[in-house]
Amino acid sequence: MEFVLEKERNEVESNELAQYIGKEVLIHGSIYKIRKMSGFAFVLLRTKREIVQCIYTEGQCNVVLEELSEEACVLVKANVVEEPRAKAGYELHMIGVEILSEPESIPPVTINQKVVNTSLENLLDFRPLTLRNERERAIFKIQAGICKAFREFLDGEGFTEIHTPKIVATGAEGGANIFQLPYFGKDAYLAQSPQFYKQMMVGVFERVYEIAPVFRAEKHDTSRHLNEYTSMDFEMGYIHSFEDIMVMEMQMLKYVFTFLKTNAARELALLGVALPEINQGIPRMKFMDAKNLISEEYHRPISDFLDFEPEEEKLLCEYVRKKTGSEFVFVTHYPSAKRPFYAMDCKENPEETNSFDLLFRGLEITTGGQRIHNYAEQVRKLQERGMHEELFESYLMMHKHGMPPHGGLGIGLERLTAMLLGFDNVRYATLFPRDINRLEP
Amino acid sequence: MEFVLEKERNEVESNELAQYIGKEVLIHGSIYKIRKMSGFAFVLLRTKREIVQCIYTEGQCNVVLEELSEEACVLVKANVVEEPRAKAGYELHMIGVEILSEPESIPPVTINQKVVNTSLENLLDFRPLTLRNERERAIFKIQAGICKAFREFLDGEGFTEIHTPKIVATGAEGGANIFQLPYFGKDAYLAQSPQFYKQMMVGVFERVYEIAPVFRAEKHDTSRHLNEYTSMDFEMGYIHSFEDIMVMEMQMLKYVFTFLKTNAARELALLGVALPEINQGIPRMKFMDAKNLISEEYHRPISDFLDFEPEEEKLLCEYVRKKTGSEFVFVTHYPSAKRPFYAMDCKENPEETNSFDLLFRGLEITTGGQRIHNYAEQVRKLQERGMHEELFESYLMMHKHGMPPHGGLGIGLERLTAMLLGFDNVRYATLFPRDINRLEP
Repeated sequence: MEFVLEKERNEVESNELAQYIGKEVLIHGSIYKIRKMSGFAFVLLRTKREIVQCIYTEGQCNVVLEELSEEACVLVKANVVEEPRAKAGYELHMIGVEILSEPESIPPVTINQKVVNTSLENLLDFRPLTLRNERERAIFKIQAGICKAFREFLDGEGFTEIHTPKIVATGAEGGANIFQLPYFGKDAYLAQSPQFYKQMMVGVFERVYEIAPVFRAEKHDTSRHLNEYTSMDFEMGYIHSFEDIMVMEMQMLKYVFTFLKTNAARELALLGVALPEINQGIPRMKFMDAKNLISEEYHRPISDFLDFEPEEEKLLCEYVRKKTGSEFVFVTHYPSAKRPFYAMDCKENPEETNSFDLLFRGLEITTGGQRIHNYAEQVRKLQERGMHEELFESYLMMHKHGMPPHGGLGIGLERLTAMLLGFDNVRYATLFPRDINRLEP
Repeated sequence: MEFVLEKERNEVESNELAQYIGKEVLIHGSIYKIRKMSGFAFVLLRTKREIVQCIYTEGQCNVVLEELSEEACVLVKANVVEEPRAKAGYELHMIGVEILSEPESIPPVTINQKVVNTSLENLLDFRPLTLRNERERAIFKIQAGICKAFREFLDGEGFTEIHTPKIVATGAEGGANIFQLPYFGKDAYLAQSPQFYKQMMVGVFERVYEIAPVFRAEKHDTSRHLNEYTSMDFEMGYIHSFEDIMVMEMQMLKYVFTFLKTNAARELALLGVALPEINQGIPRMKFMDAKNLISEEYHRPISDFLDFEPEEEKLLCEYVRKKTGSEFVFVTHYPSAKRPFYAMDCKENPEETNSFDLLFRGLEITTGGQRIHNYAEQVRKLQERGMHEELFESYLMMHKHGMPPHGGLGIGLERLTAMLLGFDNVRYATLFPRDINRLEP
C-alpha cells in the first residue's frame, strides 16, 4: 500500500531569505508589480505576508521580461546577494522563472499602488482583487492578530472556547431585527448573539468564549452597522459585580495591543497606525451622569433619556480624552428599559442595570453586563415585560438548577478593527460585508 | 473621574491548591456532589476544569451540612492540609461557606454520577444540565483543544485566519441541501461551506483557514449528519499537487494528537480514550482501487460506482487497519461526477478528480482536493455542467485575474471529535445539535 509521507520543502519563505545570502533559492509568489528601469527591472513578488523585491536583468534570467505579467503566479530561482543599501540588506537577482499560472486579463481597478484609489462601492465589488493590495490585506492580518490575542489572553485566564448554534428557535436580543428562515416545517431564526448558550456554558465551564458570526436584520444602512458580523463574546461566572467584566475586558485589550505591537508591527507601520495606550485604567461614568455632562458641557438639550445619540457618544469620547488622555470610556448603569430581559437590574435602583458599554474613539464597541442568575428573579422580569416564559423553557433550565452570579460581553470584531485603524466605515474592516444592499461577493 | 483598575484576586484556582498546603484559601465552585459519611462528608466542588474534593466536618464549618445543596454555587474557605493518602497529596478542610446562589429544584436527570445514564434524547433535551457532568464536559474541553491545536499548527505554517460571510447569494456545494432565507427582498442562502471565500483569500494571503459554522439542509436523520456543524477549513496556494494538502492535514493531525496528550491528558483519561498514532505516514488508495478491493476482499458486488456506501467505508478502514495498523486512510481520485464544479479533474483521466477524502475509524472526516485555478478551464467546467456562469461572476473574478495552483479541505469538527472519542453518534460531540427534529435547546 502506498503512503502519504512528509516531504522536504525546497522553496524558501520570504522571512527566511536573510539566512540564504550568497546562496541560490527558490521562492514562489504572485507578481505584484513590474517596474521597468533602464537596463533592468524591479519585479515585486507578493508572498504570504511580504512584498519581496526581485531584480530582473536582461540576459541573466531564462525569460524575457515581456513574458512576465502582473498577477501571474510564479516560481522564481534567484541569487540572494548581500546589498547594504537595500532595506532588507540583500537583493534577489532573478535567474529563472517558472510561470505557474497567468491571469486572463488585467484587474478592473489598480491594486498595486500604495492605496486602492477607488470608491468604497468599487473596493467592495472587486473585493477578491482589491484585497490583494498590500494595505488592504494588512487590515485583515491585523484582524487575525486581534482574534489570536483575544483567545490567547482568555485561554490564559481559564476560559474555554465553545461553538454554539446559529440557527435558533428564539431570538436572544428581542426586537424585529432578526432573520427568519423555514426549518423543516418550523420557523427558525439566525442567532443575534450567542447569549443564551454562552450563559448555559457558564454553568458548565465557568468561563467561556466564542468568536463567531451573528446576524442582525437591521434595515438601516449606516457606516457603523452590518447585517452579519463577527462577534467576540465572553461570559464568566463567580463575578463579584459587573466591574469584574470591565476589568477583564481592559486586561484583554491591553494584551491585544501588546500582541499587535510585537506580531503585526509591519502591518501597523504600513497603515501608519499608532495603537491606543491604556495606562492607569479606563475612565468610567454612569449613563445619566454622562448624559448630563455632555448636555452641560456642549449645551445640548437631552432629547432621549434612554440612549445615546451617535453625536453624544462622539462628544463624550472627546471630553474624556481631553480630561484624562484615555481614548476609551466605560459607560455604566444603562436604563433597564433599554436593556434585554436577561440584564440584572441594580439593587439600589431597578430603573438602572448592572451593565456597561465601552466607547472607543466615539463609537460603542462593546455591550456587556451582569445577567440575572436567580430563577424567580428571571421569571419575574420576563413576566413584567409581558414575555411568554414557555418560549424560554430551555433557557430557564439553567437558572432553575443553579447558576453562579455571572456576566459577559460582546465585541464587534469589525468595529474594533475599524476604530483601531481609524476608518470611518466598518466595511473597510470587513472582508466581505453584508448590508441591506450588499450580498456579494 | 473614576477609573476601572486592575484588582488583586483573593480566590485561588483549583490547579494552584498544591502551592497552598498549610494555608487557608478561598475557592469558588458549584457543589457537584455531597457524599455523607459517618461523622463527616465529602463535598465535591465543580470548578472550571477539575472536581475538587472538600471535607466537611460538623462543628468545624460555619454552616450545617443541610444548608448545602447540590448545584448550589458557593465560596468556600478551607485549610489545605497535606495528606499523602489523598490522590492530590492534600485535602481541603472546610471552615466556612458563603452560598452565592441556590438552585430552585433538583435536576430532572442525575448529572453527578460517572456517566449521565439516560437516552440520547434526554441527554440533549437537558443539555444545559447534562453538560455539567464531568465526562460530558470533558468532551468539549477536548474539542476546544482540537481547535486550538489546529490554529496553532496552521499559524506556524504561515496560514492566516479569516472570517467569511455565512449569508450568501449562491451555494458553493450545489444540490438541494441548502437553507434559504429572505434577505431584504432578495433570496439568500446559508453557506454550505466557506469554499468560494477561502479560495478568494488564497489569492490574498496564499494560505488561510477558518473555523466556523456551515449549514446543510439535509433531510435525512442519521447518526453522522447535522444540519449545522463546525467546519475546520484550510486552503493553500502554490501546491505541487493535491498530495501537498494531504501531507499538511497529516502533519496537522499529528500536531493535534500531541497537543491533546499534553493539554487534555486529564480529560482523555476520564473518557478512557487512547489517541490514534500516525507513525510512518497515512495509507492512500485510489477510489476505484478501494472499491474493487473491498468488493473482492469482502465478496460484495459494487452497486454504486460513484460513491462509497457507509458499510464500504467501514470495511475499508477495517482492512487498512489490519494490513498496516493505521486507523486513517486517504482515498483519492474520486469520480468527477460526484465532485463539485470547482474540483480539478485529473490530466490523465478527466473522469477522476485530484481530490481525496480522509476516512478515520470507518467514517469520512475530511473532503479535500485541488481546485481549478485557470479561468478558461473553470468556465468550461461550469458550462459543461449546464451551470450559469453569470451567477458566479464574483467567484470567477479571482480566476480571471490570476490564481496560483491551490487546494484545501474541510474537516467536520464534531465528526472528528466523535470519532476520536469513539462515539457512534456525532451528536455526542456537539454542544447543541441541530437536526431535522431538533432546534432546541
